[in-house]
Parts: sequence; C-alpha cells; structure tokens
Amino acid sequence: MKATFLYGSGDVRVEEVSYPTILKPTDAILRTVVACVCGSDLWDYYNFPAGRERVAKGHETIGIVEEIGSAVKNIKVGDLVVVPFVASCGHCDFCLQGLQTSCRSIEFFGHDGGGALQAEAARIPNADGTMVKLPVGVDSPLIPSLLTLSDVLCTGYHAAVTAGVKPGETVTVIGDGAVGLSAVISAKKKGAERIILVSRHENRAALGREYGATDIVAERDAEGIARIKDLTNGDGTHRVLEAVGTQSAIDMAIAVCRSGGAIGRVGASQYPTVPMDFGTLMRNITLTGGVAPARHYIDELMPDILDGTINPGKMFDLTVGIDDMAAGYKAMADRTAIKTLVRF
Amino acid sequence: MKATFLYGSGDVRVEEVSYPTILKPTDAILRTVVACVCGSDLWDYYNFPAGRERVAKGHETIGIVEEIGSAVKNIKVGDLVVVPFVASCGHCDFCLQGLQTSCRSIEFFGHDGGGALQAEAARIPNADGTMVKLPVGVDSPLIPSLLTLSDVLCTGYHAAVTAGVKPGETVTVIGDGAVGLSAVISAKKKGAERIILVSRHENRAALGREYGATDIVAERDAEGIARIKDLTNGDGTHRVLEAVGTQSAIDMAIAVCRSGGAIGRVGASQYPTVPMDFGTLMRNITLTGGVAPARHYIDELMPDILDGTINPGKMFDLTVGIDDMAAGYKAMADRTAIKTLVRF
Repeated sequence: MKATFLYGSGDVRVEEVSYPTILKPTDAILRTVVACVCGSDLWDYYNFPAGRERVAKGHETIGIVEEIGSAVKNIKVGDLVVVPFVASCGHCDFCLQGLQTSCRSIEFFGHDGGGALQAEAARIPNADGTMVKLPVGVDSPLIPSLLTLSDVLCTGYHAAVTAGVKPGETVTVIGDGAVGLSAVISAKKKGAERIILVSRHENRAALGREYGATDIVAERDAEGIARIKDLTNGDGTHRVLEAVGTQSAIDMAIAVCRSGGAIGRVGASQYPTVPMDFGTLMRNITLTGGVAPARHYIDELMPDILDGTINPGKMFDLTVGIDDMAAGYKAMADRTAIKTLVRF
Repeated sequence: MKATFLYGSGDVRVEEVSYPTILKPTDAILRTVVACVCGSDLWDYYNFPAGRERVAKGHETIGIVEEIGSAVKNIKVGDLVVVPFVASCGHCDFCLQGLQTSCRSIEFFGHDGGGALQAEAARIPNADGTMVKLPVGVDSPLIPSLLTLSDVLCTGYHAAVTAGVKPGETVTVIGDGAVGLSAVISAKKKGAERIILVSRHENRAALGREYGATDIVAERDAEGIARIKDLTNGDGTHRVLEAVGTQSAIDMAIAVCRSGGAIGRVGASQYPTVPMDFGTLMRNITLTGGVAPARHYIDELMPDILDGTINPGKMFDLTVGIDDMAAGYKAMADRTAIKTLVRF
C-alpha cells in the first residue's frame, strides 16, 4: 500500500509499504477514506530534523474498519470512523478526566513512531478508546467537516474551552490557519460577542467572517496590538486564542489580553519561554491550553456538524490523491491552500 | 507623626512627617492600630533601587477612621477598618468583576507613591471602595488574624482560587513564608486532600502542618521535585500554589504540576520568563494567578477568622513598636521571624 514520508525539508515522497496487521488484541486496521495535511506537518517540512532517515506522516483520518483485534468490543468491521490525532485507551484516569493526550497508554501517529495516517491503511492502537463511529456513509458531503474532528476543530475548540470564553465576551484569535479558523468557530459556539481575527490573507479572513469573526486585523506585532487596543477601549479582549505558536504570536497574545483575562494557547510552541512580569502575566492573565484532547471533544462537536450549524470542512480548499501528496504539502507551505484534503 | 522609610538596602528609618490630610472628597484619614511587614517589603530592602532618595513603606493596616471626606458614605468616623494593599474605587468594571487590583482608579500604598501604611496615620483614597469595617473592637485577640486580610491571607487564597483547587485534590505549596502558609490554609479551605508544603524551616513547617499541610518537603530543585513525584505516583499534584517568585520556584512548580493541572502563582515574579515547551506548560498546565485582589476576598474570608475556623494571626511571631521597625525588618530578612506585627 502507499504511505507518505518526509525525507528532508520540502521532500515529500509516497512509497509502497507493507499492509498493516493487527499487533495487539486492542488494535484495528483502518482502510483510509480521507486524510489531510496538518499545519503541524509543516514543522519538519520546513526544518527536517538532522540525523533522521525519513519520517512517516499523517495523524488525521477517516476510514473504514477492515479488521479488529480480539479484544475490540465497541468497533465493528465495516464501521466508518474518525480517528483523533493520538491513540488513547479510554479508561485510564487521564482519559476519564477528558485529557486523552496524557493517556497512560498514549500512542502517537505520524510525527514519531507508530503508524502514520497519510496512507492507504493504518493500524490504530486501542481502537475502542480511540475511534469514534460516524453516523453517515462514505459518500456524505459532511465527510470533510467530520475529518476536522480528528484535530483542527477540536484543537481550536480546546483553545476556547480552556480560555473559558463566555457569552458576551470579546475574543482575539491569533492565526488564520485551520486551527485559528476553528478557534473562531469555537468562540462563536461559546457565545463570544466580538471576535477579532488576526489574518493577513483575504480568503482566510473571508472564511473567518463567515465563521463568526466580527473584525479582521491584518497587522501584527506593535501595529496589530495597537489596532486591537483601539477596538477595545484600550483594554484588550477578555480571551485570546493563540493558534500560531511563534514568539511574536504569544507576545501579541499577552499584550492584547485584558487584565484578568485568559490566553488559550494551542499553537505548538516554537518559542522557549513566555515573558512574566507585572506588565504581562502578573496582570492576572491566565495562560492555559496545550495539546488538545481531540477525543474528548468529538462527541460534543459532531452534532453541530451533522445538523449543519458549523461547516469546518470549507477550510479544505485543495483536494489531492495519495500520489499528489508533495503538491498537497507545497500548497500549504506556500499558503496557497488553507488545508489539503487527501481522498483515497 | 512617625512613618517608616527605606533609605538604602537594609537601611530602615522611622521619621517624623506631617500628619495626613483629606485631599479628595473620597479620602479618609486612618489612625493606625496595627500594621505589618510584608515579604514584598523585603525586595527593596535587599536591593534598593538605584537613584531613589527614600521609599515610604507599608501597605497592610488596621486602623480607626479619624476623618472622612465629604463624598464618603459607607465608612464613618470611629469605624475600625482593615485596608487591603491597594486602594480601589469599588464601582468600575474591574472592581465589579472582583479584580480590584486592576481598578481604573487604583492607588498604591507603600512601594511607589501614595501614602504608606507603616505609619501612625495615613490618608486612604477611595475609602468607600477600599476600607472594610471590622465587627470587633481594637482590643480583640482576632486583630492579628484580621490584619492578614489586608494582603497575605487573600494572596494565598488567590493562588488557591485561581488554580481551582477542588475537594479531594492534591496540592503543592511552594514557599513557607506568610503567603505560602496562607496558601496552605486556603488549599485546606477548598477541600484539598493532600497538601505538600515545600519548607526548609522547622517552625514554619510546624505551623504549616497546623494549617493543614499533610506532607513537608524540605528539599528544593531537582531533589525536591523527585520527592514530590515520589509522593504522587510520579504524576505531580493537581494544583501548585507558587508563593516565592524565584526562577527556581516557578521551574519547580511546573515540574511538579500534574498534566492538566494548574499553577496559581502569587509570588511576585523575580524571573523574567517562564519555560514553554511540550515537556512543560504544553502538558495542558494552566499558569494562572497574579496580583491578588485582596478586597474581593475579604468578605468571604473574614467569617472564617471570626468563628475561629482559621487562625492566620499565628504567623506573626514578632511584635514591634514603630520605633523598632529596623529590627522588625531585619528579623524577617534573617528569617528569624515569619512575619512582623507592628502595634501602635
């Protein structure tokens, strides 16, 4: 079967690998229907880790269950399922508290080790804890939106949930990638009255408005901070959802956060530290968020997709086949695509 | 009247100054009954700011109202009141949300500008918003405990409230000064099942146990982290209350915080940054807290003092008069006193 690998910075290759097999009784084998490219897939696309031979890619997928291990109880062969970006057992203390990204039996797809999901099929560990059955058929037009449950929609939602967005509040969303746009959807779901989206791309800003952004700020750093302060009586916003992960983004997040407010950071931090003094976080600013437990949010968010309340699938503005993965990556790296869907 | 000034590192002097007078209709003049020395008073005692002539000291007091401005409605001459460590209006949006330390008309005592409270009398701005009447007489044995409402008890409580301590949880308290000990009281009030106090001083550890600490860890840094991990099945504690403010303390706080947990930091940060990566805060650790809105917590905490549930006044293990302020500071700096009470 075909699977996607990164061999160096900008060097995406699709190669034949052996078909996955059940290794543990809790495993299932999934035949991929759709997968996609994540903003986080671009980290090593931009800067390939020195000394690595190749990296297997992909951690977002919807597929059909082909085979299950002897211990799998809740998932059946033929089920159409979405798989969140880490595999979790579903019954340890962290899973039970809804923090599946700290599962005591966690297994990662893609990035390092484990089967990667930009492939025609994959072995999914802890199938019962990890997979969520979809109540639609493979031909449903909702499939792209449902695929965002595997990561970006839940990650954006995690920012809004941890930052504690409440009805009537003001929210800044920093970042207009798929996670930032998902954060806009999430802030709106939580009842934010004003949602300021920091976006420099016309098409992303337009989609952001469609998702609920009330204001677009194209400037960054000092200029962007001044714009947002101007829009908020000099106070900044109650909540800031940080979906970029750069030093510039977190500095901006702190600067535009109203005293007593909160920053939900889900941008994978490319910065080593956060400033801390009486002018920054000591203004009773809560810094929260982290790696999103997507599995925890799927049950809550799926109904909004099924009933058409939200349409996160519109973020997929490029669709490729497995043989065109290199083009799918390049479009996202060049910012000509917001997010690339891979149809199998 | 006599007031306390710092002229240089370790150089505390008591000097005659003119008696305070009403400057604004919202002011009141307070004749001091008790004041005290705060851990934060030691910052410039250790490191006096270059270029400053002298610094007026003190921001914690209980006193009797001697005179009120024409606009003061709720406070009367003769009232015995406690004054939290910043003056706040009581009616702006920040005050109404309980964040009086961001009051739009905030005035500071002590540190910089404003009247300072280690003095025989003081002008208190925004008397209605700032002062809280005490339902006891000046001779009440509860006066020392009630004085802790001006800062340390509320600051420790702010750590527990913002970190979200819940019944049955595990909590680490870093720091055995008056704020750390107040954090122990607060964690117990919030129902923590296990409270690990990081303390190197026998007498402070003993008081910490009396206040509710279940475990004492005398080690710091890597050794202390290993001890706390050992005590918590390798996970760390759900909440960490950081009441020191050094780099070592915040690093320890992050290391011993269970994934998905929260750090309430109220130690005035002497460190410029906080580490941020997948091994630290990205483990869904919430970093919260800040400068405590003491005024907000006084109504909630005072009943616990009045009915004897808590006895924070035991932290005052040295009492001096105004003429002995230098000795009062030195004892705290030398760690021979936990907290110095000043009786007038």
